[in-house]
Amino acid sequence: MTTLKKTVYFTGFMASGKSRIGRAIAERLHAPLIDTDALIVERQGKSISEIFETQGEVAFRKMELDVIREIAADPKPKVVALGGGTLTQASVVSLIRKTGLIVRLWATPEVLSERIGRKDTRPLMAGLSPEERLAKIKTMLAEREPRYALADFSVESTNDSEEKVISAVLRGLQFWENRAVYVEPSGGSHYPIFIGHKLIPHFSTLLNGLRLMPKDSFLVVTDTTIAKAQSRSLGMLKHEAGDCPAFKFRAGEIFKNLNSLNQLFTFMLRRRYSRKSCLLQLSGGVVGDMAGFAAATYQRGIDFIQIPTTLLSMVDSSVGGKVAVNHPEGKNMIGAFYQPKAVVCDLDTLSTLPDTEYLAGLAEVIKYGVIYDAEFFKYLEENVQKILARDSEAMKHIVRRSCEIKAEVVGIDEKEMGLRAILNYGHTFGHAIENLHHYEFSHGIGVSLGMRVAGRLACMLGMISKEEENRQTALLDAYGFPKTVDGVNVNAAWDSMGVDKKVEKNKRVYILPTKIGEVKKVANVEEALVKEAWKAILPEVNA
Amino acid sequence: MTTLKKTVYFTGFMASGKSRIGRAIAERLHAPLIDTDALIVERQGKSISEIFETQGEVAFRKMELDVIREIAADPKPKVVALGGGTLTQASVVSLIRKTGLIVRLWATPEVLSERIGRKDTRPLMAGLSPEERLAKIKTMLAEREPRYALADFSVESTNDSEEKVISAVLRGLQFWENRAVYVEPSGGSHYPIFIGHKLIPHFSTLLNGLRLMPKDSFLVVTDTTIAKAQSRSLGMLKHEAGDCPAFKFRAGEIFKNLNSLNQLFTFMLRRRYSRKSCLLQLSGGVVGDMAGFAAATYQRGIDFIQIPTTLLSMVDSSVGGKVAVNHPEGKNMIGAFYQPKAVVCDLDTLSTLPDTEYLAGLAEVIKYGVIYDAEFFKYLEENVQKILARDSEAMKHIVRRSCEIKAEVVGIDEKEMGLRAILNYGHTFGHAIENLHHYEFSHGIGVSLGMRVAGRLACMLGMISKEEENRQTALLDAYGFPKTVDGVNVNAAWDSMGVDKKVEKNKRVYILPTKIGEVKKVANVEEALVKEAWKAILPEVNA
Repeated sequence: MTTLKKTVYFTGFMASGKSRIGRAIAERLHAPLIDTDALIVERQGKSISEIFETQGEVAFRKMELDVIREIAADPKPKVVALGGGTLTQASVVSLIRKTGLIVRLWATPEVLSERIGRKDTRPLMAGLSPEERLAKIKTMLAEREPRYALADFSVESTNDSEEKVISAVLRGLQFWENRAVYVEPSGGSHYPIFIGHKLIPHFSTLLNGLRLMPKDSFLVVTDTTIAKAQSRSLGMLKHEAGDCPAFKFRAGEIFKNLNSLNQLFTFMLRRRYSRKSCLLQLSGGVVGDMAGFAAATYQRGIDFIQIPTTLLSMVDSSVGGKVAVNHPEGKNMIGAFYQPKAVVCDLDTLSTLPDTEYLAGLAEVIKYGVIYDAEFFKYLEENVQKILARDSEAMKHIVRRSCEIKAEVVGIDEKEMGLRAILNYGHTFGHAIENLHHYEFSHGIGVSLGMRVAGRLACMLGMISKEEENRQTALLDAYGFPKTVDGVNVNAAWDSMGVDKKVEKNKRVYILPTKIGEVKKVANVEEALVKEAWKAILPEVNA
Repeated sequence: MTTLKKTVYFTGFMASGKSRIGRAIAERLHAPLIDTDALIVERQGKSISEIFETQGEVAFRKMELDVIREIAADPKPKVVALGGGTLTQASVVSLIRKTGLIVRLWATPEVLSERIGRKDTRPLMAGLSPEERLAKIKTMLAEREPRYALADFSVESTNDSEEKVISAVLRGLQFWENRAVYVEPSGGSHYPIFIGHKLIPHFSTLLNGLRLMPKDSFLVVTDTTIAKAQSRSLGMLKHEAGDCPAFKFRAGEIFKNLNSLNQLFTFMLRRRYSRKSCLLQLSGGVVGDMAGFAAATYQRGIDFIQIPTTLLSMVDSSVGGKVAVNHPEGKNMIGAFYQPKAVVCDLDTLSTLPDTEYLAGLAEVIKYGVIYDAEFFKYLEENVQKILARDSEAMKHIVRRSCEIKAEVVGIDEKEMGLRAILNYGHTFGHAIENLHHYEFSHGIGVSLGMRVAGRLACMLGMISKEEENRQTALLDAYGFPKTVDGVNVNAAWDSMGVDKKVEKNKRVYILPTKIGEVKKVANVEEALVKEAWKAILPEVNA
């Protein structure tokens, strides 16, 4: 790393080295250095404690926010040392997340106390005995931890080598350049999605930055097929996680059940994995769902990181926290809502993905355009060749925008009460097709066909024009999605629609477009109309 | 119900009938009626809107809080109609919860709109068309729902019969008189524990009050042994839940596994239980843990209510949200943290409980005294005969105080990071005994023996005096707990202590008393000392 791409903000307790390390990083990367406290002192012509005394904390926080607004508005990347309490302001955090990275420097309370004791110029610590100082530091650290946890990544600022600290920060900045969106489900938890190349070969940087190393035990979870197809990635991942073991599920949807889960539990318990363990899932959606549910329930919940290896799982199942296994009586019937610590989309894993699977992922990508973002839909129309050729920048863009849209929808509605339902566009019809083929049918292709039916139905209902329906059809055609499906007839399709069998067929809710980039829920659609719409993809009709 | 035991506060949207129903209830129960808005208007000599305009909302909320403080301080129960926004103040809610009950009256948006339209005197709704009014009501209801959800129970205020509404409120008040403590884990969820007699025969009142009726499907979950021992309760419960089915696990700890869980899932899926279902667990701890985990994972989480039928499960496993099944490699290794909608301790279910099981529960009760509450310990010393004779008031008190203590500890520390560990007092030693007996040993008796070892160890370490150790020993003796255990020797005991096998034996953490009513964590205790303490319960030593 030789140049700074985004402004980096250092946070951490007093004496954690924010100014010292900040200065060194600024010098290395030839970037300007700003100390927000110093800047405020200079502008106000008063010390921080004078400002607190005469104008109060609220006024000071306002000055801080103004300074950070200025910094964020300037496109030139900088190194910024933040004041100790800056991140207590939620508006500061969201501002920084949009435009820069937050790095936390940390050290043990003992190291901090020793450093503070050496100088004794900190007003908050003045006149305390070493024991009192240590106790006070511990209390303050515990209080501030929730705010420090908002940092993108953490680096230990040890006493033994400044060079080591600096190079850890530089490695972190390089990895975190690939941070795309934060998923923020309700309840205050949040996790980052990384999208880029060569992420798995630097995985230990992620584990260190998230403070999962070296205290935790890791286990890579994958399946027999992926272990072969991604053998290089698998090897690197194990190595980066301290030469940890790997567990391989038998590949295939039919093994996505409690029995396979139990085999993983046995493996973990025999190897004494504790509640401090972390699963690294190198996998598509099936293993991702299973391993995620294992993480949710092993010893009442452990950490996990998703490393999706298919386009479909990058843009769909890796965001949203839905984890589950199948039951003979129904798909995904046993599960939970459980969020990963991070999702890492290493686009290099897609290089070996078969075309049919790549296409299956593109169906969900196109779906995001139809349901939420007309501009993105246009991008997909204008970049067919690049996307099909798996151009690096194009892949990055479609994965990123898809994740952003899903994260936005899920952030508003984690538990599927309302808005999240729009993600099921095309799925009601698609599931029926999958069902009629006894799930020996690609989910993505099913969705693409389902979107064709939904488009036709919306047009029949007068919700969209024939031109708009055609625009969706033309895009699906351009990517080479099948236009029709065999083995489906109108009556069987009608009967097998809907997952929740308690819902009466006539009261089904459909997600239908009102224009490109917008959908809404529609109920009470007549049986005859729905059946007519199905004909959009039946060969005998189109023939 | 003919007299009011606690002050009752009515909340709800405008036109939901707060004043009208409140007045009727006050008349029936010969209790004074207070309308907080009217009282403020009278005192200030201004209308509410004038106060808002001239002094602002903050000032008004302060007046509201003052009025409710006055009401709560007065021991004479009253009927109070609250203003529409009163519950937006958290301090008001906690004040009311301590001293009274909150009843929510609700009606569909359509009914509310029709009522408001009839009079058209509400300033917020003035001049709106019927459609605009309905839309505005829906928006406001959605906004306020989180606050209304803080009510103890809800009653639908229909248009067809005021008498029906009044009698539903009266039934609710009678049931909710038994509400003891609220458990408030992190994340804003909260649920009530009921302790009393004849609760199961009125279970539909609970289900209605929690708004689970009639839209949800119920399933009673129990096991083959309890189904026999509690056949009357089981019959009543099924009847009260709309003649719902019951599922019986095979009784016994050895069936507490994923396999049994899967049988329940199959049962539920074949009967088309949806995500809107609710499990009613009539059970001791084993079934409670299993059915709770089933609720946590069936279709990613459904509602459940615990109805513990043993003293042990009332005072221990029913509070705290820990649910799990066993794995051949370890107890409770697969599970989750998942909270019930309510816990109902119907003391009548204890009438058939064998003495040994009653005693097992008392071990945990005594534990709460030692770890948290010296006064409660004294109560247990002074009421041995009453408690052993299962006196109604005494049982109510010990269950209530135990639940309060556990709720307080769990509320501070839901996920077992710190304080919650004190609940394991006696358990480290107790588990070792259970383990050495291959879990063919009563958990409660194990804990009672473990407390003796812990007391001895604390005394040896100089943390408590010999007198304090003796006080604990004497209390355990008075209740008839065994003084020694067979089949345990010092070395085997040392080896089998601790659940987490990764912890080195010498680094184990012990929960030890510092006095009656207080414990702390102690690490680095020497092996020789621990082994010496074990001798407190070994027959050869005491003989």
